[in-house]
Amino acid sequence: MNYLVTGAAGFIGSNLIDRLLDGGHSVLGVDNFSTGREEFLRSALSSGRFRLRRLDLLYDSLLPFMDDIDIVVHFAANADVRFGPDHPTKDLEQNTIVTARVLEAVRQAGVKRVAFASTGSVYGESPVVPTPEDAPFPVQTSLYGASKLAAEGMICAYAEAFDITAFIFRFVSILGERYTHGHVFDFYQQLSEHNDVVHVLGDGSQRKSYLYVQDCVDAILLVLQCTDSKVNIFNLGTDEYCDVNQSLSWICEYLNVKPRRVYSGGNRGWIGDSPVIFLDCSSIRSLGWRPLLSIREGIIRTVKFLDANRWVCSRATNEPSIKTRSASQR
Amino acid sequence: MNYLVTGAAGFIGSNLIDRLLDGGHSVLGVDNFSTGREEFLRSALSSGRFRLRRLDLLYDSLLPFMDDIDIVVHFAANADVRFGPDHPTKDLEQNTIVTARVLEAVRQAGVKRVAFASTGSVYGESPVVPTPEDAPFPVQTSLYGASKLAAEGMICAYAEAFDITAFIFRFVSILGERYTHGHVFDFYQQLSEHNDVVHVLGDGSQRKSYLYVQDCVDAILLVLQCTDSKVNIFNLGTDEYCDVNQSLSWICEYLNVKPRRVYSGGNRGWIGDSPVIFLDCSSIRSLGWRPLLSIREGIIRTVKFLDANRWVCSRATNEPSIKTRSASQR
Repeated sequence: MNYLVTGAAGFIGSNLIDRLLDGGHSVLGVDNFSTGREEFLRSALSSGRFRLRRLDLLYDSLLPFMDDIDIVVHFAANADVRFGPDHPTKDLEQNTIVTARVLEAVRQAGVKRVAFASTGSVYGESPVVPTPEDAPFPVQTSLYGASKLAAEGMICAYAEAFDITAFIFRFVSILGERYTHGHVFDFYQQLSEHNDVVHVLGDGSQRKSYLYVQDCVDAILLVLQCTDSKVNIFNLGTDEYCDVNQSLSWICEYLNVKPRRVYSGGNRGWIGDSPVIFLDCSSIRSLGWRPLLSIREGIIRTVKFLDANRWVCSRATNEPSIKTRSASQR
Repeated sequence: MNYLVTGAAGFIGSNLIDRLLDGGHSVLGVDNFSTGREEFLRSALSSGRFRLRRLDLLYDSLLPFMDDIDIVVHFAANADVRFGPDHPTKDLEQNTIVTARVLEAVRQAGVKRVAFASTGSVYGESPVVPTPEDAPFPVQTSLYGASKLAAEGMICAYAEAFDITAFIFRFVSILGERYTHGHVFDFYQQLSEHNDVVHVLGDGSQRKSYLYVQDCVDAILLVLQCTDSKVNIFNLGTDEYCDVNQSLSWICEYLNVKPRRVYSGGNRGWIGDSPVIFLDCSSIRSLGWRPLLSIREGIIRTVKFLDANRWVCSRATNEPSIKTRSASQR
């Protein structure tokens, strides 16, 4: 199959691409390299079945790149939840409007399958925990969640209107190799700079579920292979959770440090942070999938990755050194 | 209080404005007159407490008009559900992006109250009928519903991030004076041209709930007066429904015509049409509100209005003849 993957140089996108190439598929990867890392595509670029295009999907159309594409996997996004209120239109532009533009290209090209990276944040602060896909109509608490909800809605409406099969994945936070932001990253970065003190957003009691990236990719590939309703929505998470304090303890134990913990206070790390993210994953489990790594193992693997790839923590530029051709140079 | 109402020259907006002025409030009305009618503001314009600005909110900022505004009532929208697939980006632009721009002006001006006209279409084809505000997480079936859901999500996220009180009204179809589109309009227009035959979209079995516009305005004013949670979401509809065939019979009876009925077939009038829209309105009823007119009475009043205002059915231009000053002429 011919895949087009947006957000190709991102954490989840690049891991998915490696697995697709391993599976014998061809992949056209697209990224604007605003947060994506060329290094994550080193292996993919050595494959004869991978092509890469640097495009900014807010301005560049995907349409010229749709020839022979069987499925568009739209994983490009502003994945930063925390700083939403600092730039209130960024989520709208990067997540909602970019998704609309991707959908228009899909429709115009006649592509019939679209997969989308959504988030457990669309549930806001759900009264039902663990939260199933058909939880009560949520009230949004973050601009990020709202922008992903908007994208989901458009994808479903396009599926209805234009005979497209849609796959929507609502992720918990994903951990593992090529992880570049989130609480493990923050803690690791702090402890690299000073191992005597660590600052914790909130009171550390926020309960979160984390999923290891290869388990996440397993689930995505399984769904794409064996479901074909008009709209297929799956929570992807684990059946366990930890709180931020526990997670920090595992990180400190692995790094063999004993920092003093300074809390910003409150049961939310930031505006729009949900004190509990714990998804009911019985739908994806009913397909036979289960995660192979525990949250603790996922966290340790993430710290190992960061420890072995310190450059991830000290990025100076968004420019890729590997030459990619822009749309105008095709 | 000082109200800013977008979609001021629209069906619901203009009726709301008349009632606000009757109540002693001051109103700044904004409309781009793409579908709004200057005639609907004739009474308002004779009030010393009403000002009107012609603005296109996709391009013109509301910020310069926010001085002393206590609440923004954002009712401007592309209200056409049926033709969504013919112009897939219109709902995104007119409903989602315009709402984002309104919210940015609200935030920057420090206005603390926002009311929004949403729709029962956000429930898609809900498995729960009558459908309450906390129905299962809906799957969108129309671009219109998706665009309103997106706007709702942003409004709630702004409420959370910027200390704004939000009022969201999910309307069934509204009927009454100044009604300018929908099935009563279509039937009336057809029967004016030829009373021997009438074309019905779908099989006529679609069950819908309709609310009379003054009952709708009563509910809005009540909510604005007596609720003040961070986010206040209310279904607005009646506790009864009718099917399209019944509605057509009432119209024919009133007009004293007996047309042959020709059906396009299927249980949906168009792509994204919901075979059943019937909302659980116990939340708004718990505040003491109830509709004064039945669906049948609302339909008859609508036909009477159209009969007395045939110009509504034969509009030649979007240009208002009443002079309004654009942003640049202030």
